[in-house]
Amino acid sequence: MTNLEEMGQNAQNAAFELGQLGTQQKNAALLNMANSLVSNTEKILTANKEDIETAKKNGLKQAMVDRLLLTPDRINDMSNGLRQVMDLPDPIGKIDRGWTTETGLDITQERVPLGVIGMIYEARPNVTVDAAGLCFKAGNAVILRGGKEAINSNIVLSEILRTALKNVDINPNAVQLIDDISHETAQKMMELSDYIDVLIPRGSGKFIKMVVDKAKVPIIETGAGNCHIYVDKDADLDKALKIIINAKVQRPSVCNAAEKIVIHKDVANEFLPKIYAALRANNVEVRGDTLSKAICPDIIPATEEDWGTEYDDYIIAIKIVDSIDEAIKHVNKYNTKHSESIITENYSSSRQFMKQIDAAVVYTNASTRFTDGQQFGFGAEIGISTQKLHARGPMGANELTTTKYLVQGDGQIRK
Amino acid sequence: MTNLEEMGQNAQNAAFELGQLGTQQKNAALLNMANSLVSNTEKILTANKEDIETAKKNGLKQAMVDRLLLTPDRINDMSNGLRQVMDLPDPIGKIDRGWTTETGLDITQERVPLGVIGMIYEARPNVTVDAAGLCFKAGNAVILRGGKEAINSNIVLSEILRTALKNVDINPNAVQLIDDISHETAQKMMELSDYIDVLIPRGSGKFIKMVVDKAKVPIIETGAGNCHIYVDKDADLDKALKIIINAKVQRPSVCNAAEKIVIHKDVANEFLPKIYAALRANNVEVRGDTLSKAICPDIIPATEEDWGTEYDDYIIAIKIVDSIDEAIKHVNKYNTKHSESIITENYSSSRQFMKQIDAAVVYTNASTRFTDGQQFGFGAEIGISTQKLHARGPMGANELTTTKYLVQGDGQIRK
Repeated sequence: MTNLEEMGQNAQNAAFELGQLGTQQKNAALLNMANSLVSNTEKILTANKEDIETAKKNGLKQAMVDRLLLTPDRINDMSNGLRQVMDLPDPIGKIDRGWTTETGLDITQERVPLGVIGMIYEARPNVTVDAAGLCFKAGNAVILRGGKEAINSNIVLSEILRTALKNVDINPNAVQLIDDISHETAQKMMELSDYIDVLIPRGSGKFIKMVVDKAKVPIIETGAGNCHIYVDKDADLDKALKIIINAKVQRPSVCNAAEKIVIHKDVANEFLPKIYAALRANNVEVRGDTLSKAICPDIIPATEEDWGTEYDDYIIAIKIVDSIDEAIKHVNKYNTKHSESIITENYSSSRQFMKQIDAAVVYTNASTRFTDGQQFGFGAEIGISTQKLHARGPMGANELTTTKYLVQGDGQIRK
Repeated sequence: MTNLEEMGQNAQNAAFELGQLGTQQKNAALLNMANSLVSNTEKILTANKEDIETAKKNGLKQAMVDRLLLTPDRINDMSNGLRQVMDLPDPIGKIDRGWTTETGLDITQERVPLGVIGMIYEARPNVTVDAAGLCFKAGNAVILRGGKEAINSNIVLSEILRTALKNVDINPNAVQLIDDISHETAQKMMELSDYIDVLIPRGSGKFIKMVVDKAKVPIIETGAGNCHIYVDKDADLDKALKIIINAKVQRPSVCNAAEKIVIHKDVANEFLPKIYAALRANNVEVRGDTLSKAICPDIIPATEEDWGTEYDDYIIAIKIVDSIDEAIKHVNKYNTKHSESIITENYSSSRQFMKQIDAAVVYTNASTRFTDGQQFGFGAEIGISTQKLHARGPMGANELTTTKYLVQGDGQIRK
C-alpha cells in the first residue's frame, strides 16, 4: 500500500520550495512540461492503448471509452493547455490590500499558495495534466488520484511531468500521482488533513457527493448544475429560443447546460409551442407541469423529483409561473447555486433577478454555458465551485491561492 | 427536541430578506439592538444570575464563572460592540472586479452575504451578541448554539435582539438561538448542510477539534495558536525582551499569546539569562532544550511534546538554533499557522522570515498579540481563522461574505 504520509511530507517539502520560486522559473518549467508531452507522444499513446483495451474488455460504455482515449491531437491540446497556463498572470505576490494601523504597524495582505492540493477525479486523463499545470502556476504541490480506468495513462503522464520538472531543477514532488487505485488508499487520502490543505473532487455528481461525505480534508465542491432559464413576460422571444437551444443542446452532458425552463404565463401561449418544436427538433425530451401540458399536450408530465434533477442529457423540464417573484422562488428552491439566466428586455426584471437569485453566476440574456474558466477569461479552470466558501464559480489559478498578512513594526507591544 | 429543519428554513427565509436590505436599514436595526440591550439590563442580569448560581452549585472553576458573569458594564460593552459594528463599512454590494469578455459579456464579481451562518460556542454570553451583530451587518441569518452554562443568559439576550429586529420591521429569524442544549441537537446542527452555509466554532482548542471532527457543514476553523517569537542574531535585544514579555504575559490565555521562543545561538549567551529572569519575574514557567539549559541551568527540560503544545498559560518553551533557516524550519514544523514574529534589525533576515513562514500573520519586530480584528482595524471579529480556505487571520464582516458573478449579455450563445 502506498505510503501516503511520505507522499504528503514530500508534497509539503516541494510546496515550500515552490512558494519561493519566481514567475520566470515557474513558466520555464511549464514550457518544459508542455514540450515533454509532445515529444513523448508515442509513450503516452502506448500506455493509453492499454487503458483502452482494458476498458473495452470490461465492457465500458462507448462514451466512457471516448473520454479515456488519447490521440496525438488530444496530447497537443494538453500541451497547449500548459502553454496557456504559462501565459496567465502569476497570482502569487499580489497585494490585495495594505494599510497602517493606529499603533504604526504596516500591514499588507498578500496572495500566497494554498500549499498542497489534493485532486481526486474520474476517468479523463487530461485532468492529470490540467490540474498539475494550474496548481503549479499558483505555487502549489499537487497529489493526484485519478480513476482506475486511466491508471496507465496517468502514470506515464505524471512521470513525464515529473521528469520535465527535474530537468529544470525543480523538486519533482510538486506533482505526485497515487498509483495505488484501491478504495482504501482513496479513503486515506481523503483523511490526510495533516498534509493536504484542500481536496478538489472532479467527476459526476454522485462521485463528488461520495467524496464530500467521506472526506476529512477541507473540500471545494464543484460541478453540480441544475441550471434554469427564466423567460420573462418582457423577453425577446427570439433571443430566448436561441439561448435555450444553445444552453440545452450545445453540450448537454456538462454542468452549465440548462436543465429547466421557467416561463411567465403571459408569454407561455406564444412561446411554448415554438420552444417545444425547436427542442423536439433537437431530439430533446420535454417534460413539464400541468399548465405547460395544457398548451402542448405532447409534453411528458414532470414529477416533483424533476425540479431538483440534473439530467446531463437531452431532457428538459418546463414550469409556467404567474410572476417573476414565483420564478425566483422556484429557482432558489431547486437550483444547485450554479448558473441561472433571465431573458428579458425589462430593466427592473433584470435587476430583480440578478439581485435575488442565489447562484455562483446570474445572467441576463445569455446562455448559462458561459460559466467556464476559459469563457470568463481565466485561461484555464480547475473546476466550477458551487459552494460559498473560499471560491464561487469558475476557479482559475487565482482561486488556488490564500493570503498571508505581513506586519512590519518597530517594537510595538499591545497595551 | 428542537425542530432544526424548521429553524433552518426560517433562517433561509430571513437570509433572503436580509440580502435585500440596504445599509441604512441594517444600521437602524443594529442601533435598536444596541439600545435594547441597555434598556433591558435588569432582565439580562436576572437571567445571568440563574446561570451563575447553577455554575457555582455545579462547582465550576472561578475563571469559568468569571467568563459567564454579566454586569451593567459588560452589557454596556456588548451594546457598544453593536454600535461599532453599525459604524463599520457595509461589505455587501462591493464590486471586487469587473471586465468585458471577448464575446461582449459584461461580468462583475460582487460581494453578497454567505446566507445562513451557524455559530457553536462555549461559555461566554457576549459571543451571542457579537456574532449576531457581525453576521447581521454582512446580511447573514445566524443560528446560535451557545454553551449550556450560559443558556439562561443566551435565551434572554437572543429574545431581546429578536424583539429589537421585529420593532424595526425586520424578520426576527435573522437571529435564532437553539435553546435545547442536548448533545444530540448540537450534533444535528453540525450536519445541517441543507440549511447552514458555514459553521464557525468558538471555544477551546479541544472544543473546536471536536466540532471539526463531527461536522458535515463546511467549517471555518478558528483559534489554535502555538505562536513563536524568533530572536535573530541581529535582533535589538531590548525590543526582543519587551515584545516577548508582552506577547507572553499581557494575556496568556488567548490564542495570539506567544508560546515559544526561538533564539539564534550567536545571541543566546547574552539574551537568554535576561529573558529568563524577566519571565520568572512575571511568574512564567520556563522550559527549554538542552542548549538553553546549559546557559540557564534552572530551565525545565522541554520534551518533544512541548514544541507542538499551546499552553494558554504562564508557561513558555525555548529552543536555540544555529541559523535562521533552522528557526524557520522549526516554526513551520510545529506552528498552528496562526502568528509568528521575528525580532531583527537585519533587512534580509526579516524578508526571508516573512516570505518563508507559513502562517496567517507574520511579524517583524512586533508582538503577536496584535493578531486581532480590533487591532487590525476591522472593528470587530468573529474569530481568527487558522485555515487556508476562504479566510485567514482575523475575520471581520468582510470575511462573512461570498461573491456572485453578474453577467449582462444581449443574446450571447456559446459557439
